[in-house]
Formats: sequence, structure tokens, C-alpha cells
Amino acid sequence: MTRWEPGAQERLAGAAMELYAYKGFEETTVAEIAEAVGLTERTFFRYYADKREVLFAGSEVLEQQMVAGAADASADATPLEVVKAAVTATAQYFPDERRPFSALRATVINANPQLAERELRKMSTLAAALVHALAERGIREPAATLAAQSGVTVFRVSFAQWIADGNERSFADIQHDMFEQLGALTGAVAAG
Amino acid sequence: MTRWEPGAQERLAGAAMELYAYKGFEETTVAEIAEAVGLTERTFFRYYADKREVLFAGSEVLEQQMVAGAADASADATPLEVVKAAVTATAQYFPDERRPFSALRATVINANPQLAERELRKMSTLAAALVHALAERGIREPAATLAAQSGVTVFRVSFAQWIADGNERSFADIQHDMFEQLGALTGAVAAG
Repeated sequence: MTRWEPGAQERLAGAAMELYAYKGFEETTVAEIAEAVGLTERTFFRYYADKREVLFAGSEVLEQQMVAGAADASADATPLEVVKAAVTATAQYFPDERRPFSALRATVINANPQLAERELRKMSTLAAALVHALAERGIREPAATLAAQSGVTVFRVSFAQWIADGNERSFADIQHDMFEQLGALTGAVAAG
Repeated sequence: MTRWEPGAQERLAGAAMELYAYKGFEETTVAEIAEAVGLTERTFFRYYADKREVLFAGSEVLEQQMVAGAADASADATPLEVVKAAVTATAQYFPDERRPFSALRATVINANPQLAERELRKMSTLAAALVHALAERGIREPAATLAAQSGVTVFRVSFAQWIADGNERSFADIQHDMFEQLGALTGAVAAG
């Protein structure tokens, strides 16, 4: 019998991330994670199927937010405007207070090739969801994939900037700036 | 003792790809591949470490061509011009007569999640090589990563168009067109 523990999931996730980052993902056990916050293994498994899921539990929510953001774009939006609406809608998922957690998570992912592959796959899934959202608006290939992949690129680059040491800007601000930089970078060749 | 077999590697690769595509990657044995072209397993292993390497043997050459292409860009090239030089330099690696092989390969990769992950990792490695080439030219972040990822996006989208049923355009032509489309797509938002 396990009872409801307020904030248990957040505490477990926080403890897991610290252990993964400082001790190593492979080296950390579920028992250690639970113990670090005074909970049992059984409680851990009520929230997460395994150690790995702590790192990827938010993937579906992120995708849903992107798709909802795309749906909110105006009917006459260009492909990249739809993508921008989709990608910037994720900023609510990454408020400033989440930065330390996100930065630790990135450290863990980058230290483990298998986790890095899973992360790449997650980005690929996000791109596919964007392509689908664009296709539903009647945007055809190759514009849909070019725009969707560009959106994921902005997301990734913005994310890296956001979690970088010393950054104080919001994820939303950085994303806005990166879309502008992308336009300046790629528009220059089209004109040439 | 195995003697030199002219064209053995190409014949092995061709037979492997057909077997992977029609019989399944997991279901195909090295013995079957060798037998299909009248060679021995020993000969296969002279060219490839394993079944998987047939699919990814060209990755390093591709990366070298990209890096060489970037090096050929003029000293005052913009980040995306460098990337365009890098990406379009790969067209020599994909002449029209290679299309059927490349299309079969894509079928095999897409049918197997582990191979698809390896392919994603390969694209990520190409992007990292481009970022490095840009950094060596003094191009800083985030421009380097934005430009490099955009280049890989164009490469991937162009590749999908090139191997699509009924396509008759060269890889170089398609890439040129895709860089223009990317500029038109992304430039539009920057101006807005």
C-alpha cells in the first residue's frame, strides 16, 4: 500500500536528475532515487516505468503543445508562421525556474550515447508531428518538411542557448531571436 | 586464401540491399548475400565488418566531401553559403545511376527502427562536422548551428525527393531548388 505523496513525482524527478548527472545514469538505481527523497521504490514505479522514463516523460506533452500551437496559427499563416506558432507554444513548458533541471537533464543525455539517440528520435518525432500538422492545413511537400525541420532546429538551438551557463533570457525571447536569425541567415542565400 | 574479385564490393552491396529490402534486414544472413553473387562469406568480411556496415560504409566519405566542399567556399562566404557549398559537394557521391540503390537503402532503413536511429545519428554527425567547419572559419554560435542544421535539412529533404518514385531530376538540381525554397520559406517570417 502506498499513499498519495504531494509533489512526489517532482521530487523523484529532481533527485533522479542529480544522481544521473553526478553519479551517472547507468550507475544510479531506482532504490537510490527513491531513498534520496524518502520514498519507496514502489512509489517511484507509480510515476515512472523505469529510470529512463524520468528523462523522457514530458515528450508527449511537448508534442501536444506544439500541435496545439500550430492549430492556433491563423488560417492564412505561411508554413513557417505555423511552425513558429507551434514551436513558441512550448515556452510555457520551460519557465525560468525549470532551467536548472533542464540543464542537468542535457548533461545526462549528452553523457550517454543511448540516451542521446533517444533524444534525437524524440526530435525526429516532433518534426513528424509538425509535418503532419502542416499537411492538415494543405501545406505540401517539400515545404512542410523544410518548415518543420527548420522549426525543430530553432527549438534545439534555442534550448541550448537557454540552458547555457550565465543565460538569463527566457526561452520565449531566445526562440523569437533564433527565428529572426534563421530568416536572416537563410534569406541571404535565396536572394543571391 | 581469397583472391581479388573485381567489383566484388559493389556486387555484395547490391545483393545485400536487395535481400535487406525484399527479405528483411534481420532475416538476411551474410552467407546469403555472398552466395547471391557467387562469393564466399570470407570475401564479404574482407569488405564489410558486418551486415550493418553495408548500409553505412559511405558515411565517412560523405562527411569528408561535405567538409571539403565547405573548405572550397570563398573566404567571404556567408554561413549559409558555406553550408550550401558543403552540401552540394555531396552530389558527386549520388549520380543518377546510384538512385535505385539509394532508394532501396532508404526502404531498408525506414523499415527498421534501429537502422533509422543509426541514420539519425549519422545526420547528427554530419551536422556536427559542418558546425566544426563553420567554427574554423570564425563563424560563431548560434549562426553556425542554425546554418549547419539547415544544411542537413536541405540534404535530407533533397534526398527524399531524389529517390522518390518517378523523379528524374539530378540530386544537384534538387538541392539547388531546396536551398531556394528554404530561403523563401524562412526569409518570409524574418521580414514579418
